[in-house]
Amino acid sequence: MFVPRKILEEKLRQLLVEDLGQGDVTVAAIIPANLMVNAIVVAKEEGVVAGIEETTILAEFLGLNVQDKVVDGAKIKNKQVLMKISGDAQTILATERTLLNLLSRMSGIATKTRSLTDKLKKAGVKTRIAATRKSAPGLLYFDKKAVIVGSGDPHRLHLDDMILIKDNHLAIVGSVEEAVKKAKANGSFTKKIEVEVTKVEDAVKAARAGADIVMLDNFSPKRTKEAIEALRNAGFGNVLLEVSGGITSETLLEYASAQIDIISMGELTHSVKALDISLEIVKN
Amino acid sequence: MFVPRKILEEKLRQLLVEDLGQGDVTVAAIIPANLMVNAIVVAKEEGVVAGIEETTILAEFLGLNVQDKVVDGAKIKNKQVLMKISGDAQTILATERTLLNLLSRMSGIATKTRSLTDKLKKAGVKTRIAATRKSAPGLLYFDKKAVIVGSGDPHRLHLDDMILIKDNHLAIVGSVEEAVKKAKANGSFTKKIEVEVTKVEDAVKAARAGADIVMLDNFSPKRTKEAIEALRNAGFGNVLLEVSGGITSETLLEYASAQIDIISMGELTHSVKALDISLEIVKN
Amino acid sequence: MFVPRKILEEKLRQLLVEDLGQGDVTVAAIIPANLMVNAIVVAKEEGVVAGIEETTILAEFLGLNVQDKVVDGAKIKNKQVLMKISGDAQTILATERTLLNLLSRMSGIATKTRSLTDKLKKAGVKTRIAATRKSAPGLLYFDKKAVIVGSGDPHRLHLDDMILIKDNHLAIVGSVEEAVKKAKANGSFTKKIEVEVTKVEDAVKAARAGADIVMLDNFSPKRTKEAIEALRNAGFGNVLLEVSGGITSETLLEYASAQIDIISMGELTHSVKALDISLEIVKN
Amino acid sequence: MFVPRKILEEKLRQLLVEDLGQGDVTVAAIIPANLMVNAIVVAKEEGVVAGIEETTILAEFLGLNVQDKVVDGAKIKNKQVLMKISGDAQTILATERTLLNLLSRMSGIATKTRSLTDKLKKAGVKTRIAATRKSAPGLLYFDKKAVIVGSGDPHRLHLDDMILIKDNHLAIVGSVEEAVKKAKANGSFTKKIEVEVTKVEDAVKAARAGADIVMLDNFSPKRTKEAIEALRNAGFGNVLLEVSGGITSETLLEYASAQIDIISMGELTHSVKALDISLEIVKN
Amino acid sequence: MFVPRKILEEKLRQLLVEDLGQGDVTVAAIIPANLMVNAIVVAKEEGVVAGIEETTILAEFLGLNVQDKVVDGAKIKNKQVLMKISGDAQTILATERTLLNLLSRMSGIATKTRSLTDKLKKAGVKTRIAATRKSAPGLLYFDKKAVIVGSGDPHRLHLDDMILIKDNHLAIVGSVEEAVKKAKANGSFTKKIEVEVTKVEDAVKAARAGADIVMLDNFSPKRTKEAIEALRNAGFGNVLLEVSGGITSETLLEYASAQIDIISMGELTHSVKALDISLEIVKN
Amino acid sequence: MFVPRKILEEKLRQLLVEDLGQGDVTVAAIIPANLMVNAIVVAKEEGVVAGIEETTILAEFLGLNVQDKVVDGAKIKNKQVLMKISGDAQTILATERTLLNLLSRMSGIATKTRSLTDKLKKAGVKTRIAATRKSAPGLLYFDKKAVIVGSGDPHRLHLDDMILIKDNHLAIVGSVEEAVKKAKANGSFTKKIEVEVTKVEDAVKAARAGADIVMLDNFSPKRTKEAIEALRNAGFGNVLLEVSGGITSETLLEYASAQIDIISMGELTHSVKALDISLEIVKN
Repeated sequence: MFVPRKILEEKLRQLLVEDLGQGDVTVAAIIPANLMVNAIVVAKEEGVVAGIEETTILAEFLGLNVQDKVVDGAKIKNKQVLMKISGDAQTILATERTLLNLLSRMSGIATKTRSLTDKLKKAGVKTRIAATRKSAPGLLYFDKKAVIVGSGDPHRLHLDDMILIKDNHLAIVGSVEEAVKKAKANGSFTKKIEVEVTKVEDAVKAARAGADIVMLDNFSPKRTKEAIEALRNAGFGNVLLEVSGGITSETLLEYASAQIDIISMGELTHSVKALDISLEIVKN
Repeated sequence: MFVPRKILEEKLRQLLVEDLGQGDVTVAAIIPANLMVNAIVVAKEEGVVAGIEETTILAEFLGLNVQDKVVDGAKIKNKQVLMKISGDAQTILATERTLLNLLSRMSGIATKTRSLTDKLKKAGVKTRIAATRKSAPGLLYFDKKAVIVGSGDPHRLHLDDMILIKDNHLAIVGSVEEAVKKAKANGSFTKKIEVEVTKVEDAVKAARAGADIVMLDNFSPKRTKEAIEALRNAGFGNVLLEVSGGITSETLLEYASAQIDIISMGELTHSVKALDISLEIVKN
Repeated sequence: MFVPRKILEEKLRQLLVEDLGQGDVTVAAIIPANLMVNAIVVAKEEGVVAGIEETTILAEFLGLNVQDKVVDGAKIKNKQVLMKISGDAQTILATERTLLNLLSRMSGIATKTRSLTDKLKKAGVKTRIAATRKSAPGLLYFDKKAVIVGSGDPHRLHLDDMILIKDNHLAIVGSVEEAVKKAKANGSFTKKIEVEVTKVEDAVKAARAGADIVMLDNFSPKRTKEAIEALRNAGFGNVLLEVSGGITSETLLEYASAQIDIISMGELTHSVKALDISLEIVKN
Repeated sequence: MFVPRKILEEKLRQLLVEDLGQGDVTVAAIIPANLMVNAIVVAKEEGVVAGIEETTILAEFLGLNVQDKVVDGAKIKNKQVLMKISGDAQTILATERTLLNLLSRMSGIATKTRSLTDKLKKAGVKTRIAATRKSAPGLLYFDKKAVIVGSGDPHRLHLDDMILIKDNHLAIVGSVEEAVKKAKANGSFTKKIEVEVTKVEDAVKAARAGADIVMLDNFSPKRTKEAIEALRNAGFGNVLLEVSGGITSETLLEYASAQIDIISMGELTHSVKALDISLEIVKN
Repeated sequence: MFVPRKILEEKLRQLLVEDLGQGDVTVAAIIPANLMVNAIVVAKEEGVVAGIEETTILAEFLGLNVQDKVVDGAKIKNKQVLMKISGDAQTILATERTLLNLLSRMSGIATKTRSLTDKLKKAGVKTRIAATRKSAPGLLYFDKKAVIVGSGDPHRLHLDDMILIKDNHLAIVGSVEEAVKKAKANGSFTKKIEVEVTKVEDAVKAARAGADIVMLDNFSPKRTKEAIEALRNAGFGNVLLEVSGGITSETLLEYASAQIDIISMGELTHSVKALDISLEIVKN
Repeated sequence: MFVPRKILEEKLRQLLVEDLGQGDVTVAAIIPANLMVNAIVVAKEEGVVAGIEETTILAEFLGLNVQDKVVDGAKIKNKQVLMKISGDAQTILATERTLLNLLSRMSGIATKTRSLTDKLKKAGVKTRIAATRKSAPGLLYFDKKAVIVGSGDPHRLHLDDMILIKDNHLAIVGSVEEAVKKAKANGSFTKKIEVEVTKVEDAVKAARAGADIVMLDNFSPKRTKEAIEALRNAGFGNVLLEVSGGITSETLLEYASAQIDIISMGELTHSVKALDISLEIVKN
C-alpha cells in the first residue's frame, strides 16, 4: 500500500476541504495574518500511534514545518509530544481538527490492533490479526493503513483484489463446489480464492474444489478445531484458515492455539475508540 | 442540513467508488448478470436507526428497488427487517458493504445520542446533547446527520458557521475580552460568537464582552454551578451555556440539573460503536 | 473566511482550466518557450483593489514571481501599478485573462462596497453594508471576499450558516410566529435566526417569537422608522435590524439615520461593474 | 456550443453545491419534507430572457417539474411569468437562489447584447456584435451562451480555438509580420489567425502577412475608416475587420456605418447588470 | 471486474467531456434542436466486438435509445450492424466520435486477444493468454475489460492486487530469496506472490522461497522447457508458470506445448490496431 | 496547445491514480522507504521521441530528479538513454509503468507521423500530415501533442474549434450548400468552416458556398486530381484541400504530388504501435 506522497496530499486535501467550508470565520476574525507560532501535538493517553506520516504530509502540504515527530507504530505514553508544528497561526488553527481527527482515529485503530497482535506474539503463535472491509465509509485507505501500523494484516483493500465467496454469494450460486469452480474458470490467475463456510464439511469441500483460503464463519474454538482436523484428514492441511465472528480478546488465544492462520475482526475498523490526542499552541 | 437527493447521490457515489476499485472480481466471476434477487437488511441488535434515507438513495441511484423501510430515528429491535431491496444481484452484492458500513455507523451514532437525550428527557430537563467537529475525517455530513436523527444538536457544521474561540485562539490573542472584541468587530453579524473558558471569571468576562454562548471546558458539576451563579449575579443569566469535556452517562444528569443549556460530547462521533446490521439474500 | 493558500490554489486552478481548454494555441505558435519576461498589472481607473491575494496565489502557483504588490483594500489611482509579475512568457500570457477577470471583478465589487461604507462612515453612523447571496453563480467565495475587502459584511456564506426565513418560506409555513417557533425547536443553537417581514406588525411578531435579526423587505425610510419605533415600544430595541430592497446611494443615509443596523444590497454582487485593469509586458 | 443535457447537469450541479454547503438549515428546520408546492418564476422588469434551458435542466435534474416556460431569446415584459415549477418544497427553496442567479445574469447579458444587435439590425448593417473572453471567471460557457441568445457572436470560446495575436504578444515577438509568419508556420490549418493592431499601417501589414481577421484596437470611427480605406487600396478588402475598445451605444452606428464586420465589447460579460427576476411560491 | 452501471456512467462521461470542450459548434450551427433520427453502428471489417456494454451505457446515459445490439465477445462480419441508436440528432452527432473511439479500441483489443486464445484452444492446450499493465495511460479499466471479452486473462488490474517482483525490484533487493521472504513477511495473506526471473536457477529459487507464480522473462521455448524441467525436478511442478517477452503468433504454440500456464503479451494493449467501425445516420 | 506545467501535473496525476489503486503492494512489502536510487530510461528501438516533457513533469511533480534528457522530437537510436531519474526508490518503481506507457505511446505516434512528414519533405512538397479526432478515448491532449512533436498538424483539438461538416451532418441537412449557408449564418466568425465531400461536384459547391476547407473523403489520387482541376476551373484554387481515407505510406506521395494541402490519417492515433522503451534501476 505504498502511495507517493503527492497522491496522498490530494486525499488529505479533500478531508480538509469539507471542514473548511467557505473558510474559518473564527481565525479570520481574531488571529493576525502571517503570525508565526509553534504548536505541539500531545498524547492524552497511552497507546500505539498511527497517522504521523499522513498528518505530516498534510501539514507540510499546507506550508507548515514539522519536527521531532515520533515514528508510526511506536508505543506512546500519556503526555508524550508526538510532533512539533510551526508556521502560520491561521493555517495551524484552521487545520487542527482535521489533523487530530485523522491522527486520533488511526492511532485508535493501531492501538487496538497492536494489543491483539502483542497478545498472540507473547503466546508464541503465528496467527495473524486481520481487518475486514467494515471501515468507516470512504476511509478504507486510512483505516487499512492504521491496521498495518498496528501489526495487523489489511485483508482485502477493496473488491478487486481477491475472490472472496461469502454467504450471500453462496445463497445465489447454490453450492461451495459450484462457486469455487466458477471462480477458477472465470477469475484471473492473479487472484487468490477464499470461501466463507458455516459448516465443517463445507470447509473440506471448498479446499477440495481448490480454494486457497477457507474462512470459518462464527465457529466456536471447538468447531474450529474440528474443521482443522477434518481438513488435515482430507489432505488439505496447507490451505490457509481464517476465522471470523464472535471472537473477543478473551477467546483470542483459544482460537490461536488451534493453529488458525488468520483471525479477522470487523470491530478493528467499524467500532474505533479514538486515541485522545490534542494540539497546543506553545507560548514562547 | 437539507441537501437535495441528487446532490447526496454524488457524495454516496464517491464512498462506493473507493470500495469498488477496478470492480468486484467475485461477483464478476460467479454471479450471473441480470439476475433479479431480493434481499433484506436486518438489525442484529436493538438501537436507533439512522442512514435509512442515505442508503435508500444509494440503492435507488444504482437502480435497485427499496421497500418497507423503517423511518430514520425509529427504535429498532434485534432481528427487525429495516428495508427490503430487490434488483440486480451483482449490484446488490457489490454495494452491500458500503451500504452497511454507512448504515451501521450512522445508527451507532444515533443510538448513543438518543440514549443520552432520552435520559435528559425523562429527567424533565431542557438541556440539549450536542456533537462536536470530532468526526471521522471526511464524514462530517453523515456524522452530523446521525446526531440529529438521534435527537442531538449537530453544533457547528464546519469552520464557517459560528465564531468559536477556543484555548488555542486565546493563547494567541491573549484575553477573552480582546478576542470577543475582535470577533464582534471583524465577524459578520450573521454569526453567533462562542467562547470556551477554563475559569469562572472568564465566563463572566466573555458574557460581558458580548459572547452569545459560553463553553465551560472540563468543569466539574460543582464548578459548573458556580459559573452559572456568577453569570446570573453579573446579569448574564440569558447567555447560552455549553459544557464539554469529562462528562459521562453517569454524571450527565448532574450537569443537566445545573440548568446547563448544552452538553457537547466528542465521543458521539469520534468513538462510534457501529450498530450490528446485516444484509441477507432471500431465497424465493 | 480564512482558507489556507493551498486550498485556494485548487479553486483558482479550476477557473484557469476552463479558459485554457486544450491549451493556448497563440502562445504555442509564436512565443518562445522558457523566455523570461516582466509584466506589470496596471489600473486604468481609480477604485479600491481586491483580489491581489488571490491573483498572487494563482501567479505563484504557476511558478511566476510577484513583487511590489499593493494591499487588498487600498484605494488605487488611475495608472497605478498594482503588482509586477515576472517569469515564463508563455505562462504569463496564457494566464493574463483569468487573472485580470478575477482582479477586475473583485475590485469592482470592493470599489462599489467601499463607496457606500465610506458614505456611512463620514455620516458617523454605525450601519453596516452587507452583501446577499445574489452573486455570480459559483463565485460566492470570491464575491463575498471582495465585499469584505470593501469593508462590507458578507452576510450568509451559503445556505448552512444562518436560519433566514423569507417570504417563500412564510408562504408555506403560514405565520411568522410558527416559522420562528419551528426554527428554534429544530435548528441548532449555533445558528442565528433572521426573519424577513413586509409589515411593521410582523417585525414585532418576529422579535417576540425570538428572532435574532429582523429584515425589513422593501421598506421606505418612513416605514423603516415606524418599524423601529414599534419594536422599541414592544421592548425589542436590541434585536438586530436589516433593511433590504430599493435602497440607492441617494437614500442610503436616510435609512442609516433611522439607526438601522444593516443595509443589504444584491447589486453589490449581481450587477458588478468591473474595474478596468490591464497587464502589460514590459520591454527591457 | 451544443452540450448534451447530461453534461450540462454536472456543470449546474457544481454551481448549486457551493451554495448548499452542508445543507440548507432553514428549509430543514421549518419546511416539511415531501410537501408538493407550485412556484412561478417572474420577471420584475422587461428584457430578453436567457438561461431558461439551463435552469430547466437544473430544476428537472433535481426532480422538479417545469412547465409553460418561455423560449430563450424571447423579449419579456415586466411581471411576465417565465416558467412554472412544481415539486418538493424543500428542493425548490434550497435551489431558488442558484437558479435565479444564473437566470438573472444570463438574461442581463442577453438583454444588453440584443439592445445593440437590434440597433444594428434597424440600421440595416451587417456588423456583428461580439463578446470577448472578459467574462466572470469560470463562467465562460454560460456567459458566451447568453451572448448567443442575445444574437451576438461568442468570439473565442477559450484559448484553443483561434490564434489571436495581441499587443502583449507583439511586444515579445517584435513585429506584426514576424508574428503572423510564425502563426502560419506553427499553427494548425484549422485555426483562423487574427491580429490586434494599433496603427493603420499595421492593419495592412497583418493582412499582407496572411491574417484572416484584423482587430483595430481603440480606433476612433475616423481612424477606422482610414484603416478600411488603406486595406482596400492594398487589395485586402476581403479581410474580416473587428474593432474593439471605447465603443459606446452612442457611437455604435458610426462604426457600423464604416462597414466594420465585427464590434466586440468586453462589458457585455465583465460588467453585467442582472435582470430582475424572482421566484414566488404560489398558494393554492 | 463488475462495476455498477451508474459508476461506469461517470467514467464514460469524463471521456466525452474532453472531446466536447465548450460544445460542438458544428451541430449547434447546422443541426436543428430536438430532431429525432436513427443511426446504425456498422462494422467495416470482421473481428470480435467489445465495448457494446460500455457504449450502450454511454448512449443511454445521454438519453438515446439503443436496440438490436450484438453481444460483447461475438464474432462480427464486415458490414454487420452492431447496434441501432435513435434519439436527438445533436446528441448522437456530438457523441459519435467518443463512442466509436471506445468501441473500435476495445474491439481491436478483443479481436487480437481472441485470435490468440482461439489458436491455443484449437491446439487443445490450457495455456491462458494474459494482458499486462502496458495499456494506454488512464484506460486500464477499458483495456482490461476488452482483454476479458477476448477470452484473455486481465492479469493485475493495478498495483494493489498482487505482489509482482520484477527485475528492477531485484536490482534493489539483491536476491530472489530475499525478495520473496520479505514479500511473505510484509505482504497480506490475501495476495499472491509472483517473481520475474531471467535464469532457470532463479525460477527454482523463487519457487523454493514460496512464490505462487514464476514469470520467465524473455525465455526461448527451449529455455522455457528447461525451466519447467528444473522446477519439476525440484518438486515445484505445481507452481504457476508465466512466460513473457518476445513471443509472437508464430512461436505461441511452441511455448504452449511446453505446458506453460500463462503467456502474457504487452502488445495486446500497448499497440492496439483499432477495429474499423462507423456510425451512419439512417435516412427514413 | 500550450498548457502551464501545473495544469499538466493534474492531468498526469489522474493517469497515475488509476494504476496505483490503494497503493503499490510490492514496493510496500520489499523496497525500503527513503532509499535513493538512480534509474535510466532507455530506448529499445529507434524512432522519434515524444512525451519527454510530460514524463519529466510527472517525475518532478513526484519529487524525483530528472537529468540528461533528450529533446522531444529528436530521432533516437536503439539503446539510447532518454533521461536519467534519481530519487526515492519506492516512488520510481510505483510510477515506472505509467511513465513508460505515456512515453511509449507518444513516441510511437511521433515516430509514425515523422516517417510520413519526412517522406513529404524529401519529396519537396508542402503537403501537411494531420491527425484526426480518432484518438484513444480521453487521451486527445497527449495524442495531439505527440502528432505535433512528429511534425504533424493536430487538426481539431475537440468539437469546439472548427465547423466540420461531415457525411452524417449532410444526411440530415440535405445539401452542401444549405449546410455551409447555415454554418456561416449561425457559426462564429472566429471559426473556419470545412466540408467533407464524396463527389467532385460537391467540392465545388462547398467552395462556392464559402467553405474555407474542403475534405475529399476516400478519393483515389486520380479523383483527387479531378477535384483540384474542377476547383481551379471554378475559381476556387485558393480553398484549402484535405484528403482523408484509404491513404497508405505507399500512395502518400501520389496524393502529395497532386498538390493537396493536407492529408489526414486516423491511424496515427487510433492504431498506435508503442515505441519500446524501458526503465532500468542503475546499480551503483
